[in-house]
Amino acid sequence: MQYLQQSFNVRFSYEVFFTRNLFESANTRLTGFLSAVADPAFQKKLLIVLDEGMLAHHPLLKQQIHTCLSAIPGFQLVPEMITVPGGEQVKNDDALLFRLVDAIDQYKIDRHSYVIGIGGGSLLDLVGFAAAISHRGVKHIRIPTTVLSQNDSGIGVKNGVNYKGKKNFLGSFAPPAAVFNDEAFLTTLQARDWCAGMVEAVKVALIKDAPFFEWMETHADALAGGNMADMQYLIYQCAALHLQHIGGGDPFESGSSRPLDFGHWSAHKLEQLTHFELRHGEAVAIGIALDSVYAFLLGWLDEPAMKRILQLLKKMQQPIWHPLLEKQAGGPSPVIAGLEEFREHLGGRLTITLLRAIGKGEEVHELDLELLYKAVDICKKNQS
Amino acid sequence: MQYLQQSFNVRFSYEVFFTRNLFESANTRLTGFLSAVADPAFQKKLLIVLDEGMLAHHPLLKQQIHTCLSAIPGFQLVPEMITVPGGEQVKNDDALLFRLVDAIDQYKIDRHSYVIGIGGGSLLDLVGFAAAISHRGVKHIRIPTTVLSQNDSGIGVKNGVNYKGKKNFLGSFAPPAAVFNDEAFLTTLQARDWCAGMVEAVKVALIKDAPFFEWMETHADALAGGNMADMQYLIYQCAALHLQHIGGGDPFESGSSRPLDFGHWSAHKLEQLTHFELRHGEAVAIGIALDSVYAFLLGWLDEPAMKRILQLLKKMQQPIWHPLLEKQAGGPSPVIAGLEEFREHLGGRLTITLLRAIGKGEEVHELDLELLYKAVDICKKNQS
Repeated sequence: MQYLQQSFNVRFSYEVFFTRNLFESANTRLTGFLSAVADPAFQKKLLIVLDEGMLAHHPLLKQQIHTCLSAIPGFQLVPEMITVPGGEQVKNDDALLFRLVDAIDQYKIDRHSYVIGIGGGSLLDLVGFAAAISHRGVKHIRIPTTVLSQNDSGIGVKNGVNYKGKKNFLGSFAPPAAVFNDEAFLTTLQARDWCAGMVEAVKVALIKDAPFFEWMETHADALAGGNMADMQYLIYQCAALHLQHIGGGDPFESGSSRPLDFGHWSAHKLEQLTHFELRHGEAVAIGIALDSVYAFLLGWLDEPAMKRILQLLKKMQQPIWHPLLEKQAGGPSPVIAGLEEFREHLGGRLTITLLRAIGKGEEVHELDLELLYKAVDICKKNQS
Repeated sequence: MQYLQQSFNVRFSYEVFFTRNLFESANTRLTGFLSAVADPAFQKKLLIVLDEGMLAHHPLLKQQIHTCLSAIPGFQLVPEMITVPGGEQVKNDDALLFRLVDAIDQYKIDRHSYVIGIGGGSLLDLVGFAAAISHRGVKHIRIPTTVLSQNDSGIGVKNGVNYKGKKNFLGSFAPPAAVFNDEAFLTTLQARDWCAGMVEAVKVALIKDAPFFEWMETHADALAGGNMADMQYLIYQCAALHLQHIGGGDPFESGSSRPLDFGHWSAHKLEQLTHFELRHGEAVAIGIALDSVYAFLLGWLDEPAMKRILQLLKKMQQPIWHPLLEKQAGGPSPVIAGLEEFREHLGGRLTITLLRAIGKGEEVHELDLELLYKAVDICKKNQS
């Protein structure tokens, strides 16, 4: 009678579908998914949350959603579709989080009903968190509408909001019920978002998949120029690598190791210090450039490989340097001073992924500050 | 290139330890647990959250905790121990939730550090939720100090707070890192809490374990009279049955079935309507009585079994009826009118566990209101 042992496994499973024009009447991806999970014993509800910025480019979308989802046996569409602003700002506003929680309460969304978020990664993070904490987790479906959310943030298992200026301080791990990547949404993106969204593909290729990196080098001009077929391949491949990593390792991140955060320690800080004027992808491009040059200076990465990385980022219209990386009058770079914050964010020991070669990441537990500032200089020289 | 399939298992594992005087220097339960998870590469932190009501009965506790936890290699005790009120009220106050979140931020509790909650089930629910949503989940250790939390709420995988008057509307599933049941805390409980805490044992015995029910019948007077050895057996057995159920079935409750909620549909509503003047156990005693008599009227449970149940609850000093179960002037019983709310709480189809026999629960999906009011009358007659 000294102790009782509790142990169990919980299985999580979901699909990431690739489609075009999800809400057109001929498209049965979503309606088919819902019909398959309908239960004759009771009605399930559907609550839609939309990204205002996206909606401005798709003025017929609400009507299409209504037509598509109003007549599925076993489901009841909540008539009010909630719109919230897009972009990082939605994660800074407690009132929006509680607006969604209140809607889940008001419209009696129970644990068998679905909240469907349609928008960029920030909106999906907010919607996922609101769903995760209501009734101890109502189901949510993600419909990412940007390159970045379709290939990375929208397909994984995390959600979160910012708290007192700290990125994703509040959040949870809560896998979606399903993800629907609709390429039609990408046609209305700004060129800047289209391009910045590709950086997570560069990141994951650099740590895991050299042939994919080479493919991006070959197709860089077409990708930056808006070629949709190439972009679809990039998103699919990037999403597949992310999913493999999450499912194959430590999905809820109990350890300190996060290779997918390659290039991110400085990126998070840069986003925050620039008040999110930099896109996430742009900040990660700078972070990848910095850590790649650092790995070169450390003798890990050879010079041609380092130059290829900077070259690809530049072909994708990405910055590879920022003034905040430099020492400021009388003090260190505020970005580099943020290393400790990144350790806290990960928890435990500082763990940073660097490159041994293109396609091969390896972890270190400290960075040499002098070498880091040398890397900053090299990035600056290569910027133009 | 139609879809990607994501599937993975996450393993959860923790121990529930039984001990006495956990923080005395000779007791190595907690210090041993922590030493085993220490990491030479970095310091982990310990943040203590205490129940004020409990602390009033254990004035030396803070000092004992300080002595016990200050010198464990690899751990750093946060000097400020946070005290919050005990009881259901802590779950109604957003400010307390964010006070804990702020402390996790302020003291840099990362995902390898521990928040240790010491108190009753309400405090542990609050602490568990604050930990679960900070940094997407920092680890938490539970030290339940009441009969109810040691045998049921404090040893499971749920947490939660109330929102706009709805019990546990916000919450999550987040298994603790470990649970330490210290019997010394039970010696300072009020008789009313000591007795009400036993009702969850009656509940779980009724749906799963007839011999345990018979054991309680035999020991009812000793239990109600404060016999600690008997109480320890009751807690251990009740905790074991709860853990088996959680681990063996649907730990994160993806279905509608919740046999452990036997007797709870009316209890939740009674607690709310009486503004928690009824203890949780008392409300569940009334709920068990009502549903047992209902099962008798339905022809499921024989009369002697039904009477034994009412008898045991009464021997444990529990109420088996409440005026709010009766029709009120011009309308239904407000408790019985709350059936739909319970369905929402569960999600999906209404699912209520009734008894076929002592030790054997079975689910139904509707209740006959006329029969329910007859059951109310029988409870009332048997009350005195």
